[in-house]
Amino acid sequence: PLGRKVLIIYAHQEPKSLNGSLKDAAVEELGKQGCSVTVSDLYAMQFEPRATRNDIVGCLHNSEEFNYGVEAREAYKRGDLSDDLIEEQKKVQEADLLIFQFPLYWFSMPAIMKGWMDRVLVEGFAHKFPDCYSSGLLKNKLALFSFTTGGSKEMYTKGSISGDIRYLLWPMQHGIMHYCGVKVLAPHICFAPEYVSEEKRKEMLLAWAQRLKALWKEEPINCSPEWYFK
Amino acid sequence: PLGRKVLIIYAHQEPKSLNGSLKDAAVEELGKQGCSVTVSDLYAMQFEPRATRNDIVGCLHNSEEFNYGVEAREAYKRGDLSDDLIEEQKKVQEADLLIFQFPLYWFSMPAIMKGWMDRVLVEGFAHKFPDCYSSGLLKNKLALFSFTTGGSKEMYTKGSISGDIRYLLWPMQHGIMHYCGVKVLAPHICFAPEYVSEEKRKEMLLAWAQRLKALWKEEPINCSPEWYFK
Repeated sequence: PLGRKVLIIYAHQEPKSLNGSLKDAAVEELGKQGCSVTVSDLYAMQFEPRATRNDIVGCLHNSEEFNYGVEAREAYKRGDLSDDLIEEQKKVQEADLLIFQFPLYWFSMPAIMKGWMDRVLVEGFAHKFPDCYSSGLLKNKLALFSFTTGGSKEMYTKGSISGDIRYLLWPMQHGIMHYCGVKVLAPHICFAPEYVSEEKRKEMLLAWAQRLKALWKEEPINCSPEWYFK
Repeated sequence: PLGRKVLIIYAHQEPKSLNGSLKDAAVEELGKQGCSVTVSDLYAMQFEPRATRNDIVGCLHNSEEFNYGVEAREAYKRGDLSDDLIEEQKKVQEADLLIFQFPLYWFSMPAIMKGWMDRVLVEGFAHKFPDCYSSGLLKNKLALFSFTTGGSKEMYTKGSISGDIRYLLWPMQHGIMHYCGVKVLAPHICFAPEYVSEEKRKEMLLAWAQRLKALWKEEPINCSPEWYFK
């Protein structure tokens, strides 16, 4: 709806890929709805995935022994995080909805996106124990994981060799987003697009655009072990 | 034992950290046993986590539309992967045991280590469908995930808010290592070292060195859903 803000964190090298098209479809559909949409195109930005001393501007809190979590927390307080992190945090802060768009790499997100999680979701900004899970600092926001797989839907079912696809969503949805207080919408999964026809891939794109039309009426999932492992 | 080869893939920024000490303890103890130990110190190497066109030397298989998985597979066949990947693959090929040593970041490994998985474990080298899981191309090797956590052991139990620690091992142990045919030893977990005494941390180090003494007699876990979600 008018005025809602969406941040799409997008990790694919190729604009012509299905992931690229899914991202474009979201920009278009959400734009039509009057949402304001921002895209963090991680590969195009050459986003840095490594959590290092470079993320802290100026002096360290403890220069004897480098502890990334502590240093990032203290730098956040002082306003001394590197510019790229401040920029991403501003986008997150303003967003009502975060959409993560990526190809599944090894039962998880690509390293470049994991680096976004590692570096942007700093203590004090996204969480501050015991302010986590339902009282995480990013509460009142929504997240949605939208991804493509190599394996087929059949391979990702309970009892099948790769297990229920929900098993691998636990670290991403619960361990990251829910930990920060973000409510999680059902994932959007395009299974094995490389092994289906061009027509099928078009249907996948349409289904995503279709879902987005009614997205703001969706209820978040119940992000507890039952949803994942029942 | 004499002649066994171990590769430690290590991801911590600070040599003086507990992770650094755990890595050093493994180098020392395994060395004493007559093993040949190699360390990939990812931060020191400034290891590249991003999967990009730079990983492919020379021309692309399909320059119209970049597909990382396809390009890496074809480049591997031609011997045209970038030098850093060839180097890591050589280390993996020679190793009997892979030890991953890292601090848990967001229910998973740090991005720099995820990038190692994304880029090194190329199709044709580590797996080639249907040669995966028990017939993965890295069969006859062992892997062990050794990591530290921020949260306490109590937080990572079934029924507790962060769930059983085994839930988050599924993507790493099963989705990556088992997929490549690698047999997985029980993980080694140091819970919340930042919140315990110096003496407790020393005990953690000793316990690790102690475990390594009898490591080669250990049986791999049964890396199936039952182990993780029973």
